[in-house]
Amino acid sequence: MNLISRVEYFCNVNFSSKLIEQAVEEFSQLPGIGKKTAFRFVLHLLKQDKQKLANFSDTILRLKDEIKYCKVCCNVTEHELCEVCSNPSRDKSTICVVEDIRDVIAIENTGYFKGMYHVLGGIISPMDGIGPNDLYISQLVDRMADGEVNEVIMALSTTMEGDTTNFYIYKKIKDFPVKVSTIARGIAIGGELEYADDVTLGRSIVNRVPYENSLIK
Amino acid sequence: MNLISRVEYFCNVNFSSKLIEQAVEEFSQLPGIGKKTAFRFVLHLLKQDKQKLANFSDTILRLKDEIKYCKVCCNVTEHELCEVCSNPSRDKSTICVVEDIRDVIAIENTGYFKGMYHVLGGIISPMDGIGPNDLYISQLVDRMADGEVNEVIMALSTTMEGDTTNFYIYKKIKDFPVKVSTIARGIAIGGELEYADDVTLGRSIVNRVPYENSLIK
Repeated sequence: MNLISRVEYFCNVNFSSKLIEQAVEEFSQLPGIGKKTAFRFVLHLLKQDKQKLANFSDTILRLKDEIKYCKVCCNVTEHELCEVCSNPSRDKSTICVVEDIRDVIAIENTGYFKGMYHVLGGIISPMDGIGPNDLYISQLVDRMADGEVNEVIMALSTTMEGDTTNFYIYKKIKDFPVKVSTIARGIAIGGELEYADDVTLGRSIVNRVPYENSLIK
Repeated sequence: MNLISRVEYFCNVNFSSKLIEQAVEEFSQLPGIGKKTAFRFVLHLLKQDKQKLANFSDTILRLKDEIKYCKVCCNVTEHELCEVCSNPSRDKSTICVVEDIRDVIAIENTGYFKGMYHVLGGIISPMDGIGPNDLYISQLVDRMADGEVNEVIMALSTTMEGDTTNFYIYKKIKDFPVKVSTIARGIAIGGELEYADDVTLGRSIVNRVPYENSLIK
């Protein structure tokens, strides 16, 4: 049996139980998980005791009920405001715009940013059917209105979708008295020049920085 | 931040919500899933509608209640007997001993075996704390008692644990009038000799088969 037929087989396999088939189906909806891995998960769960499965099941059910979105920055939270927005020591004049909460966690972890966030909940991607109205862009525009914000830092992926979203948001907020910047694109720290692509290397020369700014503090 | 610290960071990260942390914890119990992938799953689930999460949660909860083990071969089933054991056209004189139901599905899929199965539910592995009493070995021995079985085919992995289990079961059933065989070990169909390991190649010469048996029918 070659690889293709093995894969097809796992797509059409008779799992000898409708429920197992359904469980495999549900798990294979998770990102990056195929039928074979899903089946492995189900077999693993079958070996667990009942209480553990009940907890797992309950946690999933509660996710949708208890997780709310921060009414200021749209980050996930269990309260009205997220931890960043409710922290009085954060700099309210700078907003960093990110795609999802994974990026908030990644930036928080660097320890270099003390401002606020705005979580878009995705990026504009016509291929995936995601338009500007599916994202929390109007909420970002509303935050410009009170005049407290000086700078908006766009921290989206350096992809076509990221650039489109940057441009769309830039057009929406350019009439407010705020500076709009993007995170620096260039050679990664520890990266070797010979492996960098032409576009990145070219832009890293155009957008060169004074030597003293390049030092890692 | 190097790779190690990224990994550590995901182990100690503040997810800004106890519930998300708990959900990540639950998903990362699944085999082969780390915190980072688990977090991706949770973010994916947060984007689903409530009904979908309720179905997912319900399926997991039902797994333990509704999935039973076949009282003859210990395969999973929703009834008293599994599909193989309840099929009157199967050859009851041959039992193929396998580790878990994935192996049943794999062997069924070849279409070469028309006998019965016996699912051990694991293999003897002292390192993982799995001893003979944790497996359905006594149920296999009980099946020898009625004299209907002529041959037991051991179809376990070719590992130290598989060989230990083979030996343990062989000792338990050698006094019954049954033939005990193991599946053939040798060069895989389509495999090249120069990439085969010494032990496999050596055994494939010792256990050579008549030319007419080597033809794929």
